Amino acid sequence: METVLYHTISEVKEKVREWKRAGLTIGLVPTMGALHIGHASLMKAAREKCDRVVASVFVNPIQFGPNEDFDKYPRTLEADVKLAGECGVDVVFAPSPKEMYGEGIKLSNDLLTYVCPPFDYVDKLCGKSRPGHFDGVCTVVNKLFNIASPDFAFFGEKDAQQLIIIKKMVKDLNMNLEIVPCPIVREEDGLAVSSRNTYLSAEARKKAPTVYKALCEVRNLISKGVDNREILLDSALNVLDKDIELEYLEFVNISDLSISSKVTLKNLIVIAVKLDGVRLIDNIFPKG
Amino acid sequence: METVLYHTISEVKEKVREWKRAGLTIGLVPTMGALHIGHASLMKAAREKCDRVVASVFVNPIQFGPNEDFDKYPRTLEADVKLAGECGVDVVFAPSPKEMYGEGIKLSNDLLTYVCPPFDYVDKLCGKSRPGHFDGVCTVVNKLFNIASPDFAFFGEKDAQQLIIIKKMVKDLNMNLEIVPCPIVREEDGLAVSSRNTYLSAEARKKAPTVYKALCEVRNLISKGVDNREILLDSALNVLDKDIELEYLEFVNISDLSISSKVTLKNLIVIAVKLDGVRLIDNIFPKG
Repeated sequence: METVLYHTISEVKEKVREWKRAGLTIGLVPTMGALHIGHASLMKAAREKCDRVVASVFVNPIQFGPNEDFDKYPRTLEADVKLAGECGVDVVFAPSPKEMYGEGIKLSNDLLTYVCPPFDYVDKLCGKSRPGHFDGVCTVVNKLFNIASPDFAFFGEKDAQQLIIIKKMVKDLNMNLEIVPCPIVREEDGLAVSSRNTYLSAEARKKAPTVYKALCEVRNLISKGVDNREILLDSALNVLDKDIELEYLEFVNISDLSISSKVTLKNLIVIAVKLDGVRLIDNIFPKG
Repeated sequence: METVLYHTISEVKEKVREWKRAGLTIGLVPTMGALHIGHASLMKAAREKCDRVVASVFVNPIQFGPNEDFDKYPRTLEADVKLAGECGVDVVFAPSPKEMYGEGIKLSNDLLTYVCPPFDYVDKLCGKSRPGHFDGVCTVVNKLFNIASPDFAFFGEKDAQQLIIIKKMVKDLNMNLEIVPCPIVREEDGLAVSSRNTYLSAEARKKAPTVYKALCEVRNLISKGVDNREILLDSALNVLDKDIELEYLEFVNISDLSISSKVTLKNLIVIAVKLDGVRLIDNIFPKG
């Protein structure tokens, strides 16, 4: 089947109603575009599990802070549609901000209904340095779920906090779909694939894989019984390239994102760094 | 058909899936129980418009403030189910707080995902004296919409701010249903029917109809060309029983709840008062 590109909500809703009437299952892959092999793995997983697949491509203004990279975020719609087609996506939904949030509206919680994840899930990790970010994420994802009415929605494990927050939203609001987490896709040298990797200079790109190497080192130590945070943190700093600035390295419980008071083999190890002015995140399970 | 009483989300979802598969339309009437002739009018409207009707009965803890009447709010489930049956309701959904929000969870936005209406819609009228109230309303209504997947949901015009905020939520979040507003039902003496009227002493009950009389007086003056707020306010105070304390009398635009800078025939006139320790609200359109 040919991949169709829709720009309006009503087109998607109409197509979805048609599919539902025919008893077909729907998979949704929400993305901000600049699609890469990480997204491809999500789209292929959706293609395998569902009768019909929608991939959304929308750089969501309300999840970017005032000093973040909304304007320079890569936009590559033509290539995105091509890759989506190769992965068997049926519909690419690429709305404008106006289509999603209305004309001339001030994009703030003064005038828009927001979906707000619990404070305890956002006052840490990426949420700490990006106030309001996850409100914006939950709001747009909630809208996309209502627009595409998916049975399954596919999210990468790379954005671990986002994944756990969205699962929490689906549970708390009794939404009628299942979240399917998909494993992180890595470059050959271990760097987690991300649209923001394109911001890195050639020199910085060479240093970036030490983020994953640091995670592996920490995991290795934990599996040997080390549970002292300072020792684990030092070992990570030793492995990270000296030009990389650590924002956080934490050990969290995957069920509720709480920071573990005692490091165990069950914790998710999450990291955020800055390199060459670019913010990178990654994570790993101790038992991987 | 017999009216069925369900206490769990999964029972309702299963029944709804069955109905959807059969291509039936669903109407939802969300209530806090203590059903009266106002609710009956909603249930009958739903019965008329939809193939199947769900009425929910749930005193929602997260929309009550710490000093409000959550504990003493009337609970009359047996009578509610009877009235729902007489109105042709198919399913009464009466969950426990634990069923809706999980076991032992602190009912706050520390641990729960909330749906938050825009500040500009809640920083006035009832929202001003009830901080967080409409967050609680939107959150529970959003949940109920996901649980019952209605094509139509029926709300009384008495809670005008609530109605406008919920319509805004449905629009902002692209939810797949239509909100059907239903006219205020009044006692013979004009008092708007409300579950909270039962709190009134016999003496206070006799004074309560002056709330509606005050609205009628204001409407009458506006239709005669009076547009001065002070004059309109004074005329209302003259009609209100002297034991009634006015919380607000406002003239709002129905589309976005903005307070009208110039009073016109198109404004909704909204009022809130305290009488005998009981908070009462009412509203009226100048035309009609």
